[in-house]
Amino acid sequence: MGLPVVGMVGGGQLSRMTHQAAISLGLSLRVLADGTHDSAALVARGVTVGEHTSLQDLRDFADRCEVVTFDHEHVPGELIEALEADHPVYPSSAALRHAQDKLVMRERLAALSVPVPPFTPVATLRDVEGFGAHVGWPLVLKAATGGYDGKGVWVVRDAAEAQEVLSSGIRLLAEQKVPLRRELAAVVARSPYGQAAAWPVVETVQSDGICVEVVAPAPDLDEDRALEAQSLALRLADELDVVGVLAVELFELDDPAGAPGPLLVNELAMRPHNSAHWTIEGSRTSQFEQHLRAVLDYPLGTTSLTAPWVVMANVLGGDTDDGFDERLHLLLARDPALKVHLYGKGVRPGRKIGHVTALGERLGNVRRRARQGAHWLRTGEWFEEPAKGDLR
Amino acid sequence: MGLPVVGMVGGGQLSRMTHQAAISLGLSLRVLADGTHDSAALVARGVTVGEHTSLQDLRDFADRCEVVTFDHEHVPGELIEALEADHPVYPSSAALRHAQDKLVMRERLAALSVPVPPFTPVATLRDVEGFGAHVGWPLVLKAATGGYDGKGVWVVRDAAEAQEVLSSGIRLLAEQKVPLRRELAAVVARSPYGQAAAWPVVETVQSDGICVEVVAPAPDLDEDRALEAQSLALRLADELDVVGVLAVELFELDDPAGAPGPLLVNELAMRPHNSAHWTIEGSRTSQFEQHLRAVLDYPLGTTSLTAPWVVMANVLGGDTDDGFDERLHLLLARDPALKVHLYGKGVRPGRKIGHVTALGERLGNVRRRARQGAHWLRTGEWFEEPAKGDLR
Repeated sequence: MGLPVVGMVGGGQLSRMTHQAAISLGLSLRVLADGTHDSAALVARGVTVGEHTSLQDLRDFADRCEVVTFDHEHVPGELIEALEADHPVYPSSAALRHAQDKLVMRERLAALSVPVPPFTPVATLRDVEGFGAHVGWPLVLKAATGGYDGKGVWVVRDAAEAQEVLSSGIRLLAEQKVPLRRELAAVVARSPYGQAAAWPVVETVQSDGICVEVVAPAPDLDEDRALEAQSLALRLADELDVVGVLAVELFELDDPAGAPGPLLVNELAMRPHNSAHWTIEGSRTSQFEQHLRAVLDYPLGTTSLTAPWVVMANVLGGDTDDGFDERLHLLLARDPALKVHLYGKGVRPGRKIGHVTALGERLGNVRRRARQGAHWLRTGEWFEEPAKGDLR
Repeated sequence: MGLPVVGMVGGGQLSRMTHQAAISLGLSLRVLADGTHDSAALVARGVTVGEHTSLQDLRDFADRCEVVTFDHEHVPGELIEALEADHPVYPSSAALRHAQDKLVMRERLAALSVPVPPFTPVATLRDVEGFGAHVGWPLVLKAATGGYDGKGVWVVRDAAEAQEVLSSGIRLLAEQKVPLRRELAAVVARSPYGQAAAWPVVETVQSDGICVEVVAPAPDLDEDRALEAQSLALRLADELDVVGVLAVELFELDDPAGAPGPLLVNELAMRPHNSAHWTIEGSRTSQFEQHLRAVLDYPLGTTSLTAPWVVMANVLGGDTDDGFDERLHLLLARDPALKVHLYGKGVRPGRKIGHVTALGERLGNVRRRARQGAHWLRTGEWFEEPAKGDLR
């Protein structure tokens, strides 16, 4: 029917789930993958194996697509710039650098008067010590580029620990270790036309720097605060000229009295994001469909919730994949309403190999079901007995 | 993770949508398609091009799969029998013949005391005339095998018209033209283990023998009547040893006073079915996921509704696909909550090229949105102005 071909650079689970959404729209995603066993490459017909750091590979790939987008931030900005000279690429290199380089992002946001944790670029121990004298220890060192899932983030207690990180030679910024109440995420999408849509703000729970759980909508979040977070994300999408999904990771601070404090922006991601996997069943329009609509400059879809509470829990790899099939079987038997998503990836300890989503009326119940499912698939153990009537 | 490979014979839209569901379960459907441009072949990685009427092609295909299932009824029963000698095939040839041969089905159902329209096999005009003298004219002639979407069904008013159909040499049955109030469908799934699950009974609306609209749950259906239909479908799944999805198409008769009369079984289908496309968004478990769970002998999923009303309307091809992309764009703008499914098929007049699904609180509104969407995509015309507040 003459519908356009969307190419996604990267063959991970984000690409895999975007392909699922593309099928409904009459499309088939074309994927630039590292290899034929990449998560998305296992399920899509249009797979090109190539290097996302090779301009030639990117050009050959883009020639076969009407629009190019990304499932990760690892394509060097100068290659994207070269590519967008003769291909539509969303998000653009100019937008994407704010998700690729934390220092660029922090400086831009600070210039826009968007609240961020106190930070400074650091190159020497003296820089770090000066900053530490100002904001106190421990403090946080972050790799300006290349970090993800807790990698590239170090909490350092003193100069000796800081020196160890500095000696790696990585370009760093230092950041105050702010008193966190919890983490939130405001996820929006924006099209080239300028239309934008926001999902409800969610709470994200991290463990060892990896997102393990997302609760939608964020519990006990004041309505004004939620609107503030959504407005901030929509404003950033507009200011940075983002096209596609933009996830704004936020810190909600504790104030000294223990009440919710102000919101600070932690990170930006410009692609479908782990904090919005719940939208597949939990929102009328999933982030994957929305990302496609956005990069195709189609009108965006409704972002309303399909249930009062939606909880997503990441399934991390356990020690072995022996018996995984049986574990899956038992989980489906125990909770016939749980939605299971597996990415077709080999099991490695701590690796994200899937996620589960529970939906329902009562948060405690929904949350317990999601946690149980993810924990069980990882370990083969139920961490607690379900309360009576929980498994509906 | 060692999850099994499911092979589906047939590369149509049912296979395409089953592939979407397979991706969530960590699987990638393997598809035996007629060609690389089949609906499912456009989007799945594991595509084998071959003839579903060739035992060699079927065997080569089955060798690469843990279990084989079907997206249509056109594989000859004797080939399935040969195949199942050394491969798990669901549904089995013994079950499937009740969906392949209307006469076999009618005779079996009559033997089970399941209500069906009065029928008889007919080979000669004398047979038809004898039956007509008994049940009255007009009556219905049906091809015992091979019909679908209204093909293979003839309403004949007299002997001359009957003779014309008879002269085709097709094996036929004759059936009373029963006084219909409407058509319903009871869709269930069953696993080899014997677990079964039923979706709410739906109303199906046909036009020229093609299903154009499905309303879930069936409006104004008495609760006892709904239970009767579900029980009947579950009983048939068990009696016929169906594995996978079973759709039971039902006639709800008018009684002479115009009130709802008894239910009769019209047709059976043993695969994901047009009357349950609404389950993709409208039920916690879609028929495509359920079919996979069933043929894998996994526990079945919850079949509850996700909204009070769900209406699916088929998108039929119009005269041309010129401007289809623009039409899609305008539809998404007009109704951002409508879920659009396109099958990647070329447009031919009257061909099923997709479907749309609307969900919501008010039946009138939901139904209008689904109809509008399907009509617009086919014709490029809005058939009526939406009522105020309709497009939410």
